[in-house]
Amino acid sequence: MTVKRPEGEGDSRRPGRWGEFELIRKFLSGPEAESAPGPGAASAWPTGQGVVIGPGDDAAVLRPPGDRVILQTTDLLVEGIHFRRDWGTPRHLGWKSLAVNLSDIAAMGGQPLHCLLSLALPPPWTDAEVMEFRRGFLDLACRFDVALIGGDVTASPGPLLISVTVNGAADPARVLTRAGARPGDVIWISRPPGAAAAGLELLREGSPEVYPELLEAFLQPRPEVELGLACAAGGRVRALIDVSDGLAGDLGHILEASGVGAELEETALPVLPALKSAARNRNWNLREYMLRGGEEYSLLGCTPEGQWENFDRALREKLGRGVYAIGRVRREAGLVLRHADGREENIAPRAYDHFR
Amino acid sequence: MTVKRPEGEGDSRRPGRWGEFELIRKFLSGPEAESAPGPGAASAWPTGQGVVIGPGDDAAVLRPPGDRVILQTTDLLVEGIHFRRDWGTPRHLGWKSLAVNLSDIAAMGGQPLHCLLSLALPPPWTDAEVMEFRRGFLDLACRFDVALIGGDVTASPGPLLISVTVNGAADPARVLTRAGARPGDVIWISRPPGAAAAGLELLREGSPEVYPELLEAFLQPRPEVELGLACAAGGRVRALIDVSDGLAGDLGHILEASGVGAELEETALPVLPALKSAARNRNWNLREYMLRGGEEYSLLGCTPEGQWENFDRALREKLGRGVYAIGRVRREAGLVLRHADGREENIAPRAYDHFR
Repeated sequence: MTVKRPEGEGDSRRPGRWGEFELIRKFLSGPEAESAPGPGAASAWPTGQGVVIGPGDDAAVLRPPGDRVILQTTDLLVEGIHFRRDWGTPRHLGWKSLAVNLSDIAAMGGQPLHCLLSLALPPPWTDAEVMEFRRGFLDLACRFDVALIGGDVTASPGPLLISVTVNGAADPARVLTRAGARPGDVIWISRPPGAAAAGLELLREGSPEVYPELLEAFLQPRPEVELGLACAAGGRVRALIDVSDGLAGDLGHILEASGVGAELEETALPVLPALKSAARNRNWNLREYMLRGGEEYSLLGCTPEGQWENFDRALREKLGRGVYAIGRVRREAGLVLRHADGREENIAPRAYDHFR
Repeated sequence: MTVKRPEGEGDSRRPGRWGEFELIRKFLSGPEAESAPGPGAASAWPTGQGVVIGPGDDAAVLRPPGDRVILQTTDLLVEGIHFRRDWGTPRHLGWKSLAVNLSDIAAMGGQPLHCLLSLALPPPWTDAEVMEFRRGFLDLACRFDVALIGGDVTASPGPLLISVTVNGAADPARVLTRAGARPGDVIWISRPPGAAAAGLELLREGSPEVYPELLEAFLQPRPEVELGLACAAGGRVRALIDVSDGLAGDLGHILEASGVGAELEETALPVLPALKSAARNRNWNLREYMLRGGEEYSLLGCTPEGQWENFDRALREKLGRGVYAIGRVRREAGLVLRHADGREENIAPRAYDHFR
């Protein structure tokens, strides 16, 4: 959909750049016809599963995923709100814009299948940068065989905007929601929390060089697709969510949906050495980073106590790594943090609010 | 996905407004609990078909649409590019942002089923305006039983941005693409072209009062869902597209995909009286509006010559209206306009390019 301008009223938002249709063609087919790809870099889009008609017609046409249910999620990334142009490369942005959606599919225990990508490009955005964005997006798409089946591209008079929608599929009997937690369940998290928020803070300070691990957690988060699939297949997970609003906030979503409360063991919370070091050097409140830091895209789940050992062992065998048990689901509402001395502190299970 | 801000660094982008989660709750459930809805106005979201889990978890969960294929399309609307805030009401925008996507599903001969809506809201956008937007979106969703299954909401430092994705379903043997046109086929269009571009020009001029019909064509386009379904069911349409880039441009898409050319009969092009009047009064180039005017969201199709009469009759019986035969598909590449005196003029089958 475009606003037709009368003849003569030329739109020169992208002077000397590819036109809309050329840009789409290059994005879909890649610049490799003209220049050789980098070593080992993927160059072509995955064909994916069930794609009857991909981009180019009025709508994509997809075969239903057999006896599985369809999962669908969408996320919007806005320059100046979710990222700043000088924080990373276009390649980081391409990766991340897909990663945050794959993480949502992972959090339902699903297999990602297809994606749609819409871009609103402001004038400073060059063709080369769009192709760099494509490279990051494509790298991640190739890892999970996610086909690009459609999208939209337009000019933007302001920020860069990225809207991605992802389809996945899951066994209907094994879809993992936020609503299944029961008192006594072990609460676990897949990665030590707080790294992405710390990376963001380093970028804000303008001193990003020191802790590449923290930066990467923010700029290029790894969606836990294999773990989500293992959780669904193993049948030992009752509730699952991905950590986008912070550990306390996303645990709060599980507690609310499940009608339960929880306690976290302070001494059980895994601390990333780089985060500990950065927090000490900068006098940060380490606990706040770990409990409230968003954009982790790790998984947070609840497993029945009696199945915890088998769950953990099966993960180590299947994926070569386990997860971190950090607390228990309780019958009583609310979220408490239990300190080493046994003292219980009420903490707000709230998520980050975008408008506050 | 949100950028977590450290404690104390408050974000007051929406002072005195609902927070993110409250806004989503109101949007999904409606403001009717607090104030009575208008007469005859729909207030609740359609439940739609096949929705196992709607908004609120990490992803929506959908049952596959039986033995049908899934259609999927997405469109991005950006303030300052596709619309201006003072041109219409938020209700118009809500309607239109869904309409342009339903039109794409219609152009494949499909039944729309579900939608996802993402909004990036700039500071001046009030809660009341968001609810007005909701009303327009909801009005159209209710007409076609389209369920809202997910989305995202965020602040915007610049323009208002609306990203909508729509799922549909179609009989796999009857999906209508751009690629099936054959020499001799009758080319038809469902509405006289040019009205939306004229409405846009009136808004640009700041003199919108005179031609409400033209304004409405731009602000509140009617997606041709019933017509698209009738085309698919009847089996007498070989190629179909919706007119978003203008008659010549979208016909060009059909010709390119089908590997054919076409002739249009100038005398057969239906002229909307309001457009004719506006063009005369303002010294507009009427033909350019009709051939190049975008954002029509009418349907443009190709029907085998021998089936034309049955096609047209069946439509009149089923929908109470026919379509306009405007030309023929030819073997020779290119698009020509045949004038009343038999003279043929080559016209560029090009679409509007967003970046030029």
